[in-house]
Amino acid sequence: MNTNSQNLQTQFERLKRNKLFELFVISVILISALLIGAKTYSLPPKVITATIILDYLITLFFVVEISIRFIAEPNKKHFFNNFWNVFDTLIVLVSLVPIENSELAVVGRLIRVFRVLRMVSIIPELRILLTSLVKALPQLGYVMLLMFIIFYIYAAIGSTLFETINPTLWGDIAISMLTLFRVMTFEDWTDVMYETMQVYSLSWIYFLSFIFLSAFAFLNMVIGIVVNVMEQEHAKVREEKSLAEGTNEPSLRELQQELSEIKALLRQQK
Amino acid sequence: MNTNSQNLQTQFERLKRNKLFELFVISVILISALLIGAKTYSLPPKVITATIILDYLITLFFVVEISIRFIAEPNKKHFFNNFWNVFDTLIVLVSLVPIENSELAVVGRLIRVFRVLRMVSIIPELRILLTSLVKALPQLGYVMLLMFIIFYIYAAIGSTLFETINPTLWGDIAISMLTLFRVMTFEDWTDVMYETMQVYSLSWIYFLSFIFLSAFAFLNMVIGIVVNVMEQEHAKVREEKSLAEGTNEPSLRELQQELSEIKALLRQQK
Amino acid sequence: MNTNSQNLQTQFERLKRNKLFELFVISVILISALLIGAKTYSLPPKVITATIILDYLITLFFVVEISIRFIAEPNKKHFFNNFWNVFDTLIVLVSLVPIENSELAVVGRLIRVFRVLRMVSIIPELRILLTSLVKALPQLGYVMLLMFIIFYIYAAIGSTLFETINPTLWGDIAISMLTLFRVMTFEDWTDVMYETMQVYSLSWIYFLSFIFLSAFAFLNMVIGIVVNVMEQEHAKVREEKSLAEGTNEPSLRELQQELSEIKALLRQQK
Amino acid sequence: MNTNSQNLQTQFERLKRNKLFELFVISVILISALLIGAKTYSLPPKVITATIILDYLITLFFVVEISIRFIAEPNKKHFFNNFWNVFDTLIVLVSLVPIENSELAVVGRLIRVFRVLRMVSIIPELRILLTSLVKALPQLGYVMLLMFIIFYIYAAIGSTLFETINPTLWGDIAISMLTLFRVMTFEDWTDVMYETMQVYSLSWIYFLSFIFLSAFAFLNMVIGIVVNVMEQEHAKVREEKSLAEGTNEPSLRELQQELSEIKALLRQQK
Repeated sequence: MNTNSQNLQTQFERLKRNKLFELFVISVILISALLIGAKTYSLPPKVITATIILDYLITLFFVVEISIRFIAEPNKKHFFNNFWNVFDTLIVLVSLVPIENSELAVVGRLIRVFRVLRMVSIIPELRILLTSLVKALPQLGYVMLLMFIIFYIYAAIGSTLFETINPTLWGDIAISMLTLFRVMTFEDWTDVMYETMQVYSLSWIYFLSFIFLSAFAFLNMVIGIVVNVMEQEHAKVREEKSLAEGTNEPSLRELQQELSEIKALLRQQK
Repeated sequence: MNTNSQNLQTQFERLKRNKLFELFVISVILISALLIGAKTYSLPPKVITATIILDYLITLFFVVEISIRFIAEPNKKHFFNNFWNVFDTLIVLVSLVPIENSELAVVGRLIRVFRVLRMVSIIPELRILLTSLVKALPQLGYVMLLMFIIFYIYAAIGSTLFETINPTLWGDIAISMLTLFRVMTFEDWTDVMYETMQVYSLSWIYFLSFIFLSAFAFLNMVIGIVVNVMEQEHAKVREEKSLAEGTNEPSLRELQQELSEIKALLRQQK
Repeated sequence: MNTNSQNLQTQFERLKRNKLFELFVISVILISALLIGAKTYSLPPKVITATIILDYLITLFFVVEISIRFIAEPNKKHFFNNFWNVFDTLIVLVSLVPIENSELAVVGRLIRVFRVLRMVSIIPELRILLTSLVKALPQLGYVMLLMFIIFYIYAAIGSTLFETINPTLWGDIAISMLTLFRVMTFEDWTDVMYETMQVYSLSWIYFLSFIFLSAFAFLNMVIGIVVNVMEQEHAKVREEKSLAEGTNEPSLRELQQELSEIKALLRQQK
Repeated sequence: MNTNSQNLQTQFERLKRNKLFELFVISVILISALLIGAKTYSLPPKVITATIILDYLITLFFVVEISIRFIAEPNKKHFFNNFWNVFDTLIVLVSLVPIENSELAVVGRLIRVFRVLRMVSIIPELRILLTSLVKALPQLGYVMLLMFIIFYIYAAIGSTLFETINPTLWGDIAISMLTLFRVMTFEDWTDVMYETMQVYSLSWIYFLSFIFLSAFAFLNMVIGIVVNVMEQEHAKVREEKSLAEGTNEPSLRELQQELSEIKALLRQQK
C-alpha cells in the first residue's frame, strides 16, 4: 500500500509538471471565466441549464486538480506553507458550498468570480508581478500615513465648516474624506468649490491648498516607487558587473601587492 | 530586352533615391491628406468635381510610384518581405477599387484616410519611432494581462450587483468593463458611484479599491516602460564607453601581466 | 532645591525617553483625532458630555506632557530653537483658550483639528518626510514663478476679453486665475471654452496654448523634482562607494608613487 | 563730444550693472503688472485717472531704461543680436502707440499685459529656464508629428462617420480635432462616446483605440523629455568627473608607460 501511494505520488508529480496538463488547467480556468462573463447576459433557459452543468463539471475538475497537487506534494506540511496553494484551496472549497437558495445565489456567483484569480496563481510571471507589487507597499507606508493625516485634517475642517451647506458631501468625517478623494481626482471639483464659495468666499484657499498638498504627497509617493524600482535595477546591474569583474579583472589592491613584492625583490638585490 | 529592363531598373533605382522625387512624393501625400480634410467641409459643386479629379490623379500617381519602387527593386522577393512595402501596396490597391455606389462611398472615403499613414512609411524617423513603440508592447504583456484580470473580476462583480440599478452602465460584463474604464479615467465617476451608493451604501469600497488597484497597475506599466527605455539608453552609453576604452586604455589585467613579467625579469637577475 | 530640580529633570528626561510613555502620548493623540472625527457625527447628549470631558482631559494631558518635555530639557534656550517644540507648544497653548461662546466654538473645534498634526511631530519618519518636502520647495521656486507669470498673463487677457461673456468666471484677474486653474485640471474646461467660442470663435487658441504652456511648465517642475531626488540618491551611493573604496582600494595615484619608488631603486642599482 | 558720449556710455554701463537700479526696474515691472491686474476690477473714476497717469509714467520709464541700455552698449550691432533686447524694445515701442479710441483700447490693454514678460527678460534664471524649454522642443518634433497624424486620421474618420450625429462636435476636420483633444483630456469624453454609440454601437472601439494610441504617444513624449534631461545631467556629472580626474588621478595608460620604462631599465641591467 505504501509503495502504491508512492507510485501514485510520483505519477501525479509527473502529471502536475506535464505541460499539456497545465495548458488544460489554464483552459478550464478560461472557460470558467467566460462562463462568469456569459451569466451576466440574459440567456435562453437551455443555455442556462448548460452553464449550470458546466459549472458543476468545472467545480469537480478543480477539486480533482487540487487533490492531485496535494497528493503529488511529498511533504504535506509544505503544501500549506505556500500562499498560492492555500489561496487555490480556499477558492475551490468555497465554491463547493451548495447554494440553491435564491438570496445567496448572488453571493455564490460572486465567489465564483474569484476563480479568475487562479489565473494569477497558475502563471508564474503574474505571480512574480503581484509579489513585487505587494513588496513595494510597506516602503510607501509613511507617505500613505502622511496622506491620511492630510485627508483627515481637511475632512475634519470640511465637515465642520461646510456641513450646513451640503450635508450629502460634508455630512460627517467619513463622507468628507470621500468628497476630498473626489476633489483629488479633479472629478467635478469646481462644483463642490463654487457651492461653498457662495457662503465662504475664501473657501478656494481650502480647496487649492488641499489639491497642492495631496498632489505633492502623491507625487512623492510615485517618485518613491520609481526611485525604488531604479535602485533595484541598478543593484542588479552592479551585482552582475562585480560578478563579471571578479573573474576577469584584478583589483587595484592586488596590483599594489605585486608592486610591494617587486620592491622587496629589488631591495634584496642591493 | 533583358538589358532594356535592367536599364529601366537602374534608372528607376536612381529616381527612387532622388531627393527631389522623394519631396514630390511627400507633397502628393500632403495634398492627399489636405484633400481628405477638405472633403469634411461643405464645398461648392465645382470644387467637389475638382477634388474628384485630383483624387483620380493622386491614385494614379500612387500606382505609378509603387510600380517604380517595385521595378527598381533588384530582388522582387525582397520587396514583399518589407512590411512598409506591403503596407503601401495594400493602401494603393484598396483605393483602386471603384466605388461609385453611394452606400460604399463612405467606406471608400475612410480607406483614403489611411493614405495619410504613408507619411509614416516615407519618413524614416517616424518609421523608427513606430517600430520602437511596437517593440515595447510585448514586454508590457503581463502587466496588461493583470490589468485585464482586474477589469474582468470587477466587471463581473459590478454587473452582478449593480445591473438592476442602472442597466445602461452595468447591463452585461462588456458594458461594465467600459464603465470601469470610464471610472479609471475619472470621467464623472462619482455620478456612477453615488447612484450605486443609494442601494449599497458600502459600494464606495468597490470603486475606491478598483481605482487604487488599476492606478497601481497602470503606474507599474508606466514605470516598466521608463525603466526599459532607461536601460536601453544606459546600454548604449556603456557600449560606447567600452568601445572608447578598448582602443585607448589598457585593462588592469594587462597591467598585472606586465608586473608579472617584471617580477620574472628580477628573479632571472638573482 | 537646586539638586531637587536637577533630580526632577533627570527623572523627566528618563520619562521622555521611555518607549511606553511615547506610545501613551501617541495613543492620546490618536484618541484626540478620533474625538475630532466623532464630533462631526450627530451624537446623543450623553456622548457629547463625555467628549467634552475627554477633551478637557486631553488638553490637560498635553499641557503636562509639554511641561515635562520643557523641564527635561537641560538648556531651556535650545527648547524653543527646535521648530517642532514651538509647534507643539503653540497647538497646546491655543487649545487652552476658553471658548464657551457658540460663535467661537467652531473656531475652537477647528484649532483642535491641528492636534492631529502632533502625529507628525512625534513620529520621526514623518518629520523627516515633511522636512525633505519643504527642502525641495525653494529649488522649484523659479519654475513656480514662471508658472505664475503664465497664469497672470493669461488671466489678464481672459478677464479683458471674456468678462462680458461670463463675469462669474472672468470677472477680475483673481477669479480668472481660479478659472484657469480649473482649466489646467481639465475640470469641465470645454464648457468654459465653448461659451467663449460663441463670441470669439478663435478663442480655442487661447485655451489650447494655455493648456500646452502650463502642462509643459508643470512637467518641467515634476522632472525637476525627479532629477533632484535621483541626484541625491546617486550622491548617497557615490559617497558610500568612495567611503568603501577609501578603506579597501588604493588609488591610481598611490600605485604611481610606488612605481616611481621602484624606478628610483633601479636607478640606484645601476 | 566723443569723449562726452563715451563718458555717458561708461556712466550708463555702470548704472545698468547697479544692483539698486536693477531692483528698481523689477519693481516698476511689478507695479506695471499689478496695474494690469487692478484694471480688471471696477474702480472709482479717481483711481482710473491715477492708473492712466501711472501708466504714462511707466511707459516713460521703460523708454528711458531701454535707451540707457542701448547707449550703454559699446557695440550697437550687438544690441539687436540679443533676442531679449529686441523683445524688450518691441514691447516698449508697441506701448508707445497712442490708443485713445475705445475700440482699440482693448488691444492696447492686451499689449500692456506682455510687459509682465519683461520679468522673464530681466531675471537671468527665468531666461535660462525658458531657453532650455525652447531647446527641448525640436527634439520632440517627430513625436509631435506622429501625434498630429494620429489626430488627423481619427478626425477624418470621426467627421465622416459622426457628422450627422452631432455637427457641433464633428462638423469638419478642424472641429473634430478639437473634440478629440477634449477626449484626450478625458473631459466628458463618455458623453461624446455614448452619443455616437446610439447609432454605431461599436464606436467605443474608435474612442478606446484613440485614447490608447494618443496616451501611448504622449507617454513617449514625456519619457523622451525625461531621458533627455537625465542625459544632460549625466553628461554634466561625467564632465566634472573627468575634469577632476584629469588633474588628480593618472590614467591606466600612464601607469602602463611607467611599467614599460621599468622593464627597459631592468633589461639594460642584464
